Amino acid sequence: MSEPAQTLDGWYTLHDFRTIDWAAWKLLTNNERQAAIHEFTLFLNKLDNVQERKEGSHALYTIIGQKADFMLMILRPTMEELNNLENEFNKLTIAEYTRPAYSYFSVVELSSYLAGDSDEDPYENPYVRSRLYPILPKTKYVSFYPMDKRREGNDNWYMLSMEERKDLMYSHGMIGRQYAGKVKQIITGSVGFDDYEWGVTLFSNDVLQFKKLVYEMRFDEVSARYGEFGSFFVGHLLEDSQIDQFLHVK
Amino acid sequence: MSEPAQTLDGWYTLHDFRTIDWAAWKLLTNNERQAAIHEFTLFLNKLDNVQERKEGSHALYTIIGQKADFMLMILRPTMEELNNLENEFNKLTIAEYTRPAYSYFSVVELSSYLAGDSDEDPYENPYVRSRLYPILPKTKYVSFYPMDKRREGNDNWYMLSMEERKDLMYSHGMIGRQYAGKVKQIITGSVGFDDYEWGVTLFSNDVLQFKKLVYEMRFDEVSARYGEFGSFFVGHLLEDSQIDQFLHVK
Amino acid sequence: MSEPAQTLDGWYTLHDFRTIDWAAWKLLTNNERQAAIHEFTLFLNKLDNVQERKEGSHALYTIIGQKADFMLMILRPTMEELNNLENEFNKLTIAEYTRPAYSYFSVVELSSYLAGDSDEDPYENPYVRSRLYPILPKTKYVSFYPMDKRREGNDNWYMLSMEERKDLMYSHGMIGRQYAGKVKQIITGSVGFDDYEWGVTLFSNDVLQFKKLVYEMRFDEVSARYGEFGSFFVGHLLEDSQIDQFLHVK
Amino acid sequence: MSEPAQTLDGWYTLHDFRTIDWAAWKLLTNNERQAAIHEFTLFLNKLDNVQERKEGSHALYTIIGQKADFMLMILRPTMEELNNLENEFNKLTIAEYTRPAYSYFSVVELSSYLAGDSDEDPYENPYVRSRLYPILPKTKYVSFYPMDKRREGNDNWYMLSMEERKDLMYSHGMIGRQYAGKVKQIITGSVGFDDYEWGVTLFSNDVLQFKKLVYEMRFDEVSARYGEFGSFFVGHLLEDSQIDQFLHVK
Amino acid sequence: MSEPAQTLDGWYTLHDFRTIDWAAWKLLTNNERQAAIHEFTLFLNKLDNVQERKEGSHALYTIIGQKADFMLMILRPTMEELNNLENEFNKLTIAEYTRPAYSYFSVVELSSYLAGDSDEDPYENPYVRSRLYPILPKTKYVSFYPMDKRREGNDNWYMLSMEERKDLMYSHGMIGRQYAGKVKQIITGSVGFDDYEWGVTLFSNDVLQFKKLVYEMRFDEVSARYGEFGSFFVGHLLEDSQIDQFLHVK
Repeated sequence: MSEPAQTLDGWYTLHDFRTIDWAAWKLLTNNERQAAIHEFTLFLNKLDNVQERKEGSHALYTIIGQKADFMLMILRPTMEELNNLENEFNKLTIAEYTRPAYSYFSVVELSSYLAGDSDEDPYENPYVRSRLYPILPKTKYVSFYPMDKRREGNDNWYMLSMEERKDLMYSHGMIGRQYAGKVKQIITGSVGFDDYEWGVTLFSNDVLQFKKLVYEMRFDEVSARYGEFGSFFVGHLLEDSQIDQFLHVK
Repeated sequence: MSEPAQTLDGWYTLHDFRTIDWAAWKLLTNNERQAAIHEFTLFLNKLDNVQERKEGSHALYTIIGQKADFMLMILRPTMEELNNLENEFNKLTIAEYTRPAYSYFSVVELSSYLAGDSDEDPYENPYVRSRLYPILPKTKYVSFYPMDKRREGNDNWYMLSMEERKDLMYSHGMIGRQYAGKVKQIITGSVGFDDYEWGVTLFSNDVLQFKKLVYEMRFDEVSARYGEFGSFFVGHLLEDSQIDQFLHVK
Repeated sequence: MSEPAQTLDGWYTLHDFRTIDWAAWKLLTNNERQAAIHEFTLFLNKLDNVQERKEGSHALYTIIGQKADFMLMILRPTMEELNNLENEFNKLTIAEYTRPAYSYFSVVELSSYLAGDSDEDPYENPYVRSRLYPILPKTKYVSFYPMDKRREGNDNWYMLSMEERKDLMYSHGMIGRQYAGKVKQIITGSVGFDDYEWGVTLFSNDVLQFKKLVYEMRFDEVSARYGEFGSFFVGHLLEDSQIDQFLHVK
Repeated sequence: MSEPAQTLDGWYTLHDFRTIDWAAWKLLTNNERQAAIHEFTLFLNKLDNVQERKEGSHALYTIIGQKADFMLMILRPTMEELNNLENEFNKLTIAEYTRPAYSYFSVVELSSYLAGDSDEDPYENPYVRSRLYPILPKTKYVSFYPMDKRREGNDNWYMLSMEERKDLMYSHGMIGRQYAGKVKQIITGSVGFDDYEWGVTLFSNDVLQFKKLVYEMRFDEVSARYGEFGSFFVGHLLEDSQIDQFLHVK
Repeated sequence: MSEPAQTLDGWYTLHDFRTIDWAAWKLLTNNERQAAIHEFTLFLNKLDNVQERKEGSHALYTIIGQKADFMLMILRPTMEELNNLENEFNKLTIAEYTRPAYSYFSVVELSSYLAGDSDEDPYENPYVRSRLYPILPKTKYVSFYPMDKRREGNDNWYMLSMEERKDLMYSHGMIGRQYAGKVKQIITGSVGFDDYEWGVTLFSNDVLQFKKLVYEMRFDEVSARYGEFGSFFVGHLLEDSQIDQFLHVK
């Protein structure tokens, strides 16, 4: 058996993708719609308050194409809080006018491949803490996709030695660093939690950087030989002040 | 032909995942909802009674994300009882406000890879009996996933000799033992019964242990080369006393 | 080109799996439901009459889990008869309260791998006839699954010589024989008819025998290297006299 | 690069599979249903007229099992005509009582693997013309399936030399010839048109011949190593005079 | 790590496929339908104006078969504009009578495999600009399909050297050139954006050229060994003046 990498685990994360049933939404009266939007806004305000207290974070993005109309990504210290928020959202009036499109449950994860040796408790290191319990950047764009490491014939990540994996991850990490300042990446682990092994959430103010980063990485052996990718979701920031306009119908 | 492992088989098991149709549920009057909850509670009480008599067991968990809203896992001495309970549930009022999300039919199974030699009838051994006919622990969290052993090119579990499989399962079991006290695992066999060969149900009071256990095992050859996994479902205990709150809508 | 096995072909077979829409079914009045059940019973009586005349056979089983609520398996001398019966069922009132879940079209098949040499017309042999035109046993349990022989890299059944296939099938058949008296197996061929190459229907009064048989066979090279399996459906006999109870709602 | 086979291309073809919503169909009055059937019959009469003028062809078959209730296969000299007929059908009253089940767009194709050398324009050869612009035989049974040539590891059809492919196709064609008079086969090409590379439509008055032919071919290297098959649809001729009965409900 | 090809990126692109709910559409009064068509036409006029100013482009095609009824392909300088147009369409009355069928988000891309060396800024080159910011040709036919480069065992595009990929792409490009004047091809990149790596949109006045081109390319090593294809959608130009007729019902 090959030695697993150690991981540090931070906030639990739920990516929740929804599709709006516009035809049903239009059947409401203006007042009913305003009440539903108001109720949704109060829900988001509550999330905002948690975020201001740094007891969690969240982000709301519209999603392009037919895969979904919007994504609400929420991070919390416990899985119960996420589950409760999900149920609370489901009971909102606005939820009656959405259909589930996709969801992903995972936990913010730092892997130790690139870590130095130290006697320090990493969970007390402020830099590590800022990455395990991140306040999501409100960049203009987001890209989310789940992924696996391949286990197929001669391309079996989990049969590689720790040393081999460390070397591969090092060069992989080097690509990511070239995008520092352009793309912020949050890795969430989901082995035992959801259908892929990791979720990747990318944040940028330039949507093209998602393509450049993922394309460049695909030529790196970690992705080329060992990456298996799920669906990609790309979205645009939906600020609280834009929700009214987003949901406005004649 | 390679010699199959002998298995011991205990209670039949049905995992039943459901999604709630909140919009329809809200259309009921408070009285109608209370009546439906009451009827559901009586159904659960009946299951409780069976469990107290140790003639079966069950557990009710909410499920995180859009895969399902809750899972009812039921164990019984015969398949008819499970089938009858499923039909009984389907005829409850609450069932009209749920949609099927996923189900899995299997039987509690102990494999003989790790067994010692003995002339004793294992079905009379109290420890074996406690594992074949388990009262499910009411831990805070659950994780369920179905799995196969791979039969692909050079990675064909079923072409290995009994000796090879025994060795591989031994080291695999060693990992599981490290989680003793942290994660309780129930293996249910489903060859000939459902679409995968086994179901794995993990119970823990720390949801992170699911990830740690499954991740560590993935580096073990049994999983790395021979494991094929289906969907993962993670949930939080829903106690009888919380059902009212869980189903409460304004 | 490798020589194909010769097959003997008997009755055409339709496995028809249905899910009941209980919510809609409950909306009927008692009288309407009774009328629908009565009409369904008359349909089944007609099938019973055909079976008594040995001009066909059928079986009705409830199915466990969410895959379906019941399966009606019908065998007839011609495909038109099956198609007409399917359309006749579709026009029954009860059908309005079911949703299609799965179906499989095939023909009872005996393969010549195990046949001895003879000048006799096998279609005149009474034993062969009883297997090609079987009256289905009304065992307590049924298991159905479709399957293919693999054609992948070095595991390509159809590139093996007749001799190799015969040897493999011989040892495979030996396993089946150990279950004589415990499990009755009906193989139906569906190359050119449906999405897999064969359907397997197992009958037993002990549901656990399905698991034992299929598990043991999986270690045999024919399954281990060459078997590809579809979904498994397991059910419990639904006798005519139990239909009322099965469909009863308050 | 390997040399592609030359193809001759004839009429464009649309296979359109539909499922009937019997519950909704029953809600109509007898008069409404008669009017819908009459309108559908007029549509079919128009197709009949085109066929009589040999400006196209079509066939209507019921489909066994839950995949569909009927298939309308239409051939026309241009894709616009097919597209217009599809839209015309969609606007019929009967269409409101059907659900789309599957469709396939392709073009009648003759491949040059078996062609002799000649200076003649093949499109002027009467035999070739009769195969490129066929009037569909109204046999009792039909079988349709789409297929690909495999491109996988060492089993890559498109990396074989022209000579190798020619040899393989020759022996493949020999099997087909043994079924002359029993099965008529129409190959339609769909590379760049639909999700598989070819559609195969088989016509016979003996449904068992479909199984015999496809099974025998599966042992031929072209299918054994290089064939990838989609879903199989089998049906029974639905003559204009039987439509009333087929759609009759109490 | 192998060196990635450099790409030039132009307009963002959304392919939006929709299916019409004819039964619901017929339930409207003539006036309501005319109003919905008029509103849709105004939306298209706005797109026409943008196209006339060369600030974007779009095309509307009917789609053959059950995959969709029409495709609206839109190109814009920013992703927000696409997302806004999608939401604007979703709020139109006509959208209530359509169902989402498929969508694809990508960006017009030129790869540098075939580029010469130059100090010039390619984004200032008029020929390059005309390809990055294309006004879509209004040919009679369109074909769209998404694709990946394979990463499987020995057929791993991303493990090839730049030189090998350049040679392979060169011969691939030679085939495309033979279709100059017959088929116009627009490649859009979607790594990090959608589920495949590229979208291919072909335009031609002869639908058969799609088949000829894609078939010929399939024998080229780039496709034969390294191409993985998604669904193919083929359509016919729907001019503004034909919309009334297309949507006309009795």
